[in-house]
Amino acid sequence: MGLVVALAGGVGAAKLLRGLVKIIPPQDLVIVGNTGDDIELYGLHISPDLDIIMYTLAGIVDETKGWGISGDTFNCLDMLAKLRLETWFKLGDRDLAIHILRTKMLKEGMTLSKATAELCKMLGVKAKLVPMSDNPVRTKVLSGTLCLEFQEYFVKRQTRDIVTGVLFEGAEEAKPAPGVIKAIRDADRIVMCPSNPVLSISPILSISPIRKELQKTDAYIIGISPIVGGKALKGPADKVMASMGLEVSAYGVAKFYEDLLDHFIIDKMDEQHKRRIEELGMKVTVADTVMKTLEDSIRLAKIVMETK
Amino acid sequence: MGLVVALAGGVGAAKLLRGLVKIIPPQDLVIVGNTGDDIELYGLHISPDLDIIMYTLAGIVDETKGWGISGDTFNCLDMLAKLRLETWFKLGDRDLAIHILRTKMLKEGMTLSKATAELCKMLGVKAKLVPMSDNPVRTKVLSGTLCLEFQEYFVKRQTRDIVTGVLFEGAEEAKPAPGVIKAIRDADRIVMCPSNPVLSISPILSISPIRKELQKTDAYIIGISPIVGGKALKGPADKVMASMGLEVSAYGVAKFYEDLLDHFIIDKMDEQHKRRIEELGMKVTVADTVMKTLEDSIRLAKIVMETK
Repeated sequence: MGLVVALAGGVGAAKLLRGLVKIIPPQDLVIVGNTGDDIELYGLHISPDLDIIMYTLAGIVDETKGWGISGDTFNCLDMLAKLRLETWFKLGDRDLAIHILRTKMLKEGMTLSKATAELCKMLGVKAKLVPMSDNPVRTKVLSGTLCLEFQEYFVKRQTRDIVTGVLFEGAEEAKPAPGVIKAIRDADRIVMCPSNPVLSISPILSISPIRKELQKTDAYIIGISPIVGGKALKGPADKVMASMGLEVSAYGVAKFYEDLLDHFIIDKMDEQHKRRIEELGMKVTVADTVMKTLEDSIRLAKIVMETK
Repeated sequence: MGLVVALAGGVGAAKLLRGLVKIIPPQDLVIVGNTGDDIELYGLHISPDLDIIMYTLAGIVDETKGWGISGDTFNCLDMLAKLRLETWFKLGDRDLAIHILRTKMLKEGMTLSKATAELCKMLGVKAKLVPMSDNPVRTKVLSGTLCLEFQEYFVKRQTRDIVTGVLFEGAEEAKPAPGVIKAIRDADRIVMCPSNPVLSISPILSISPIRKELQKTDAYIIGISPIVGGKALKGPADKVMASMGLEVSAYGVAKFYEDLLDHFIIDKMDEQHKRRIEELGMKVTVADTVMKTLEDSIRLAKIVMETK
């Protein structure tokens, strides 16, 4: 069937990917993960989006939250709180094992992509998960005169700030991680996962060799709208798009990816946008895009693989 | 009452110290802790003896085990085991908070003594706990042709090897931590806690400026035997002393510290050794030295403070 490359944020992407790995051989899938959300806490390197994907594909994700490890406890965090440290970022005890190991590997001089490959191997994840870059790129959320770290905006302040701009610190100097460009070049299909376009996919596209390669690749590029019925299924994509002056709709997302997409998948609720999106120069498939169960994920993954 | 300096290993020392801080102002106590047992695991710096003392004085120690934090869970370790890492060193989830913070502080360039002071402050420990040195000194246990890391001998192999020698790697170059020499010089009383003389107190004495200062100080030096009735109350002190050719008795311990002690406290069970120990040139007090309850600890601490 050929190589599939997926550009992925966190929860939304992971839901599609868990379906995708059921219908294609995992070794035919390269996932390029967003690391703009990465954060150093208590000296530990945390890659939330990579973790969500790893945990989901390893079958250990907390299904209810969509992140973290199922049945995890928070006793280390509880102790840190007793020591009066800030504990707004919810690190589970099992989850910590991953952060501790990743930090150790990085400290020993491993690249983030090598460390990610090691962790995937330990967790039994067979698809290839690659961070967008081994260099630090940090998403900063601007709100008026405030410049917030992504996790500060997202977790600590619970997306309450009006986003007036987004920066990807380090993006200019960052190189794509090894294998990313080749995968895009060799791919038959490229999937823009249903993640927040502004905060989760843009950091990946902010690395210009990646964007350029996507613009010139022969692969068929398919996007899935994370906006359904004018609302984000999860997270602040709708609020962020609105405050950035983008239309909060499947059309707004398609427009955002206009120069990249060959095909866009929108929800049945958004059928009225089909014509307008087609006018942007891409094909449109209308489908059930809300993924609650694994079966939903497989169904949507099949549509992704069958569009042409 | 003047300054009291205590040379301390782990569990036995902590039991005496919890009594001592009840009868003297904590700021009059300087505890010089053994760091020969320190170990780096999963990239984290662990100082088991310092931790036992901190947790005990903070009132959060697991009373049954004598180490670790009361009511702790082991879910991070459990995850590490699932990832097929070696998990013989029992790191609790709450416990991890301390190791993570210490590692962060050291990584940021803090000395171990400064990091220890910060952790003590966070935990509300008022006595001054100082590592013997800010430089790494690592206790190695020799057994025939084997050279074992201390924790490998102690925890992983559960003290099953016959100890034929002990090395303190790095001791020659190590400097006493800031304040240690001055404390010994200014002290009225110095206490050799009832810890393993060969494996817990010797590493401290292996730093020659410390040993020299103890030899010339005017302070009254009091030891307490960790051997009662020919047996170690806890740990392998008896086995180790035997295999090192030392007499396994209160006398053997007194003899080991012969050049340092002014006074030695032995258990009632060991009264028969009193005369022989006195012949080594030190005074001897016979007392109940087994500390089960806090009251036992206070009673023994009072004896330590009243000997003359």
